[in-house]
Amino acid sequence: MPDSTTQNQSSATLLLIDVINHFEYPDSDKLLAQALPVGPRIAELRRRARAAGIPVIYVNDNFGQWRSDASKVLAYCLRPEAPSARFVEQLRPQDDDYFVLKPMHSGFYQTPLELLLKHLGVTTLILAGIATNSCIQYTAHDAKMRNFRIFVPPDCSASRTREEHDQAIQHMQAMASADITPSPDLPLQQLAQPAKQQNSSAA
Amino acid sequence: MPDSTTQNQSSATLLLIDVINHFEYPDSDKLLAQALPVGPRIAELRRRARAAGIPVIYVNDNFGQWRSDASKVLAYCLRPEAPSARFVEQLRPQDDDYFVLKPMHSGFYQTPLELLLKHLGVTTLILAGIATNSCIQYTAHDAKMRNFRIFVPPDCSASRTREEHDQAIQHMQAMASADITPSPDLPLQQLAQPAKQQNSSAA
Amino acid sequence: MPDSTTQNQSSATLLLIDVINHFEYPDSDKLLAQALPVGPRIAELRRRARAAGIPVIYVNDNFGQWRSDASKVLAYCLRPEAPSARFVEQLRPQDDDYFVLKPMHSGFYQTPLELLLKHLGVTTLILAGIATNSCIQYTAHDAKMRNFRIFVPPDCSASRTREEHDQAIQHMQAMASADITPSPDLPLQQLAQPAKQQNSSAA
Amino acid sequence: MPDSTTQNQSSATLLLIDVINHFEYPDSDKLLAQALPVGPRIAELRRRARAAGIPVIYVNDNFGQWRSDASKVLAYCLRPEAPSARFVEQLRPQDDDYFVLKPMHSGFYQTPLELLLKHLGVTTLILAGIATNSCIQYTAHDAKMRNFRIFVPPDCSASRTREEHDQAIQHMQAMASADITPSPDLPLQQLAQPAKQQNSSAA
Repeated sequence: MPDSTTQNQSSATLLLIDVINHFEYPDSDKLLAQALPVGPRIAELRRRARAAGIPVIYVNDNFGQWRSDASKVLAYCLRPEAPSARFVEQLRPQDDDYFVLKPMHSGFYQTPLELLLKHLGVTTLILAGIATNSCIQYTAHDAKMRNFRIFVPPDCSASRTREEHDQAIQHMQAMASADITPSPDLPLQQLAQPAKQQNSSAA
Repeated sequence: MPDSTTQNQSSATLLLIDVINHFEYPDSDKLLAQALPVGPRIAELRRRARAAGIPVIYVNDNFGQWRSDASKVLAYCLRPEAPSARFVEQLRPQDDDYFVLKPMHSGFYQTPLELLLKHLGVTTLILAGIATNSCIQYTAHDAKMRNFRIFVPPDCSASRTREEHDQAIQHMQAMASADITPSPDLPLQQLAQPAKQQNSSAA
Repeated sequence: MPDSTTQNQSSATLLLIDVINHFEYPDSDKLLAQALPVGPRIAELRRRARAAGIPVIYVNDNFGQWRSDASKVLAYCLRPEAPSARFVEQLRPQDDDYFVLKPMHSGFYQTPLELLLKHLGVTTLILAGIATNSCIQYTAHDAKMRNFRIFVPPDCSASRTREEHDQAIQHMQAMASADITPSPDLPLQQLAQPAKQQNSSAA
Repeated sequence: MPDSTTQNQSSATLLLIDVINHFEYPDSDKLLAQALPVGPRIAELRRRARAAGIPVIYVNDNFGQWRSDASKVLAYCLRPEAPSARFVEQLRPQDDDYFVLKPMHSGFYQTPLELLLKHLGVTTLILAGIATNSCIQYTAHDAKMRNFRIFVPPDCSASRTREEHDQAIQHMQAMASADITPSPDLPLQQLAQPAKQQNSSAA
């Protein structure tokens, strides 16, 4: 059973946070309304990242399920009658995407994410998904303490309100040193280079 | 999507460590030879644990896969031509068993196991599986530091050699305060009581 | 050498975050200006907490020192010529206060704080110190994921600007379920009761 | 307050585990008897490591003290009437040694050790101290999972009995890939080279 992480060259990865989401919690109707226009932009960012050779890691709530069965969560969110289906459909994982189930807000808390990032050799994280002021912000804090370079394109995440979203983006820029370049302007080809080459060119 | 952990009453849980195993690494033929006679005893312990109301948690290597897809690892180990199939078949997870994928030796390192145990309210761990002197011992150490009560029935785990197995059992008894009662003599009904009642009766 | 944590009865603790501070980093003059009027209120909260039997834990940056020597950091911040002395003087630790050195923003990251809280048996944290939108907010996030009840009295912390402070307080209320009652109104006697009694009276 | 870790070039570090020890626990008289002849060898290894430019990190139990005050633990162990004084005296930390207090067995559990090692840029750990089959073994396991190269010179650690010591050394060799070269034969000059140079020469 060959290790699935050995081929990566990119020093960056795209983290898709809680995009496989059932939107079944307080205020999730507000969040879904804000998330719907963002979904196609996340899908487009994912498409460009994959084209550039940047691996994609789903970092997703286990929603109280504890069976390491990502497909079950996915199937639940895609039920035809579920309001979540419209958002989730365009963001289905592909075969070579990674998938980390997280039990709490931060993608790093009680998950193998840090070890997966070390295996992949990545030093830069691009964060997208929902919600900006919750799981994305918690994850950005933990990434900052682990010395990752952080990008949070503001057009690829959403909160319950625009104000919460904007404040969280500002906070991550100020307190987690996040780069908040919009997704169309992200230098994906450059971020996809191996870590060593980037260091050399920076020196 | 209801939380799957809310109904448990038992203060103990059975951890099945690396029993979904492909035995494709150095010396794994020796390990498999030692594991084969142990398999039915683990299966019987699991049957009795379930009957007593003790939840079963698979704590299993991800074998270099990073897609949170336990079923893929299981299917690989159960391939008819695989030497592992004979061992793994009798230990397939059932629908209400929990499943934690671990990336390294210890079940606690970069996994949600500690949080799942807290959700379940368990304070006692029964360790079974393979290998005694590797993943079981690493997990026992981490459990000791987290103040869990530990049982390691010596007839329900195996190493490459009998000597390695025996030394690891002795070490866990001495250094992780493990109870090494053989599985047929484990007081499962008593261990299945809620933590509070056990404390009261101890007082 | 007797364990120093065995006598506590209180289910709450007061965490004083980065109050032993040298204010030698970018914008720290702005932060000191905001912190100076807050210092006496933190000192008063500490006095009342101690009187109620609530233990006090300093959770403090090691400022790049790695010798587990809290007194060295303290002495540096209290140099008579240092601008920090005026703030720090009123907040010197007392003999029976605890002291946890943290290497990064969150008090929980790579520190023994979680274990100390477990030893003390506390379930409620009162956060005070600096800066509201940095180390206090990072710590509040980590406390939320560990299921602690959180109080952040808004008059006992400070940021570089009033706006940053206010937004961080709002964020912790919304996203970490923090109670933001001002310090004079905190029910310290009630919070100082053992966890069990609080549960009983809540039932 | 300058960061104290910036000058290191060595890719290896010497971890002195629990050598500041009060020997006040069950069977600690047996442990002290085994440790006394080992003490001078640890002191000599430390002398040679320092001469080679290898940083020394004390990784020491806090013995139930929670005030980040390493000097208090040291003073207690050095009381003239204490049996521990004879062992500890020769192993006093020097001014530029690092000091990490640990609350449990492993040097990595709830401590800043991993972050300090990252700051220092070290990839190789030399473990010495007491007890071989307890805190050294727990620490070796955690180091293995974090991918450190591990040396455990058998003449620089001790357990309650020679048999426990020998079995633990064998276990770390087999299960944590530890190199068990005796201390006089350790290639300290080579281990003291920067990580990059070692990698280049290995390629």
